[in-house]
Amino acid sequence: MAVHIHPTALVNSKKIGDDTRIWAFVNILEHAEIGGACNICDHCFIENNVTIGNRVTIKTNVSLWDGVRIADDVFVGPAVVFSNDLRPRSKNYKPVVETHLQQGCSIGAGSILLAGIRIGKYAMTGIGSVVTRDVPDYALVYGNPARQHGWVDESGEKLTADGNGFWNSPSGIKFRETINGLERV
Amino acid sequence: MAVHIHPTALVNSKKIGDDTRIWAFVNILEHAEIGGACNICDHCFIENNVTIGNRVTIKTNVSLWDGVRIADDVFVGPAVVFSNDLRPRSKNYKPVVETHLQQGCSIGAGSILLAGIRIGKYAMTGIGSVVTRDVPDYALVYGNPARQHGWVDESGEKLTADGNGFWNSPSGIKFRETINGLERV
Amino acid sequence: MAVHIHPTALVNSKKIGDDTRIWAFVNILEHAEIGGACNICDHCFIENNVTIGNRVTIKTNVSLWDGVRIADDVFVGPAVVFSNDLRPRSKNYKPVVETHLQQGCSIGAGSILLAGIRIGKYAMTGIGSVVTRDVPDYALVYGNPARQHGWVDESGEKLTADGNGFWNSPSGIKFRETINGLERV
Repeated sequence: MAVHIHPTALVNSKKIGDDTRIWAFVNILEHAEIGGACNICDHCFIENNVTIGNRVTIKTNVSLWDGVRIADDVFVGPAVVFSNDLRPRSKNYKPVVETHLQQGCSIGAGSILLAGIRIGKYAMTGIGSVVTRDVPDYALVYGNPARQHGWVDESGEKLTADGNGFWNSPSGIKFRETINGLERV
Repeated sequence: MAVHIHPTALVNSKKIGDDTRIWAFVNILEHAEIGGACNICDHCFIENNVTIGNRVTIKTNVSLWDGVRIADDVFVGPAVVFSNDLRPRSKNYKPVVETHLQQGCSIGAGSILLAGIRIGKYAMTGIGSVVTRDVPDYALVYGNPARQHGWVDESGEKLTADGNGFWNSPSGIKFRETINGLERV
Repeated sequence: MAVHIHPTALVNSKKIGDDTRIWAFVNILEHAEIGGACNICDHCFIENNVTIGNRVTIKTNVSLWDGVRIADDVFVGPAVVFSNDLRPRSKNYKPVVETHLQQGCSIGAGSILLAGIRIGKYAMTGIGSVVTRDVPDYALVYGNPARQHGWVDESGEKLTADGNGFWNSPSGIKFRETINGLERV
């Protein structure tokens, strides 16, 4: 299936995968790369040096700046805010600081991400999080600044410790700790 | 007086009351219900399963998702963020979690509301509040997470305790505590 | 060089300086005054009683309300939120409360500013700041509510105390304390 582009959207990129939908009043610059089966909702702005994987959801009012890298299956909630300059001044242009969202993570509504951080696989930031440091794989963080408040599985369900160093999801999946957070056993 | 719709706005709903004004670059889906004498400001997005009462103000950059219920006389500040899924994952669609804004309440600029909460009558959230639990009638809350810092009257003026279990507004209105917060005596 | 206006932008003001660029889906009302060499990015809304100096950057999704005063060389990050009413209620119109951004200051991505505050010269608010009081010249603030966490120079570099009551930038500029914050010696 072709790319679906709302008549009011401005889409200059040719590198958009099949079955992706671009909604109203979106502006996508020429060199952005977007995978297939994505949803880019109203009033988003996507700059040139941006890559987005497959099956990604970008809700309304999100701007993706040069240096944002989004892997497959990521959820970016409404009004999430990215940045690519740690000390911005008007007319003071510097090399961009990259931000990485890894596979399957979810950025909660209204979260704000400091330039340069990495959000781990299947991690989740709660609504209104101000994320100022890397988030481990499968971690749940929230607050300003965001702190870790547990672990979640691929469905977003909270994990519980089994007392033997493992973490279990409600559906019975077992995880162990790694240097990057958790991983499935 | 008729509905006033800016030429750039996309309005598919027919259920909009008299004298409501829809401003530039707004997108309103077909089944949304909006009362009369409302103001829907620039760059808002309103999904289908949304109901809005009369004399409601929705400032700029607000997205109202399926499940948002807004009563009469409510003020929703600029860049207020709603959500309808407590554990969002891309492409993982669940029944929506409803959020209720009761009569006359005000949601301060940039506040973020967790899916499922109820904002009480004439309650007020300060700017940048991250609201994660229900807010009582006439309560003033702010912070991340939002905590209660007093009570306000219908004009937004702070109330003072009279020492006999009642609360008084600067204009002399007396309130008493109820299971839902305050109410006028 | 003339003003550059994107074809989708709505610009009713005639008071815009040379070499200013207005990007997509922006709406600028008739009486707004904007200096030269500014950048007003996608999805911004600028009301009538607004003044903006020269070489100012306004990133995406920013609404500037009546009463906002922005001096030269200011950076306003994406999704920054202004307000002009301390106790908003729907349909309750009051005189606007002015907010002043002084020369060269930077408002970090997603910061929210309480109506009536002054951001000092070359001050900087970190991402997601909720700014509820005046910020001194050259101060660095962040958090909710925003607190001061040091001083920065015109480039945004942090200053260090020299033990004799002065503050030094990495590039060797010396500052002293004043009633408004810092100033260059």
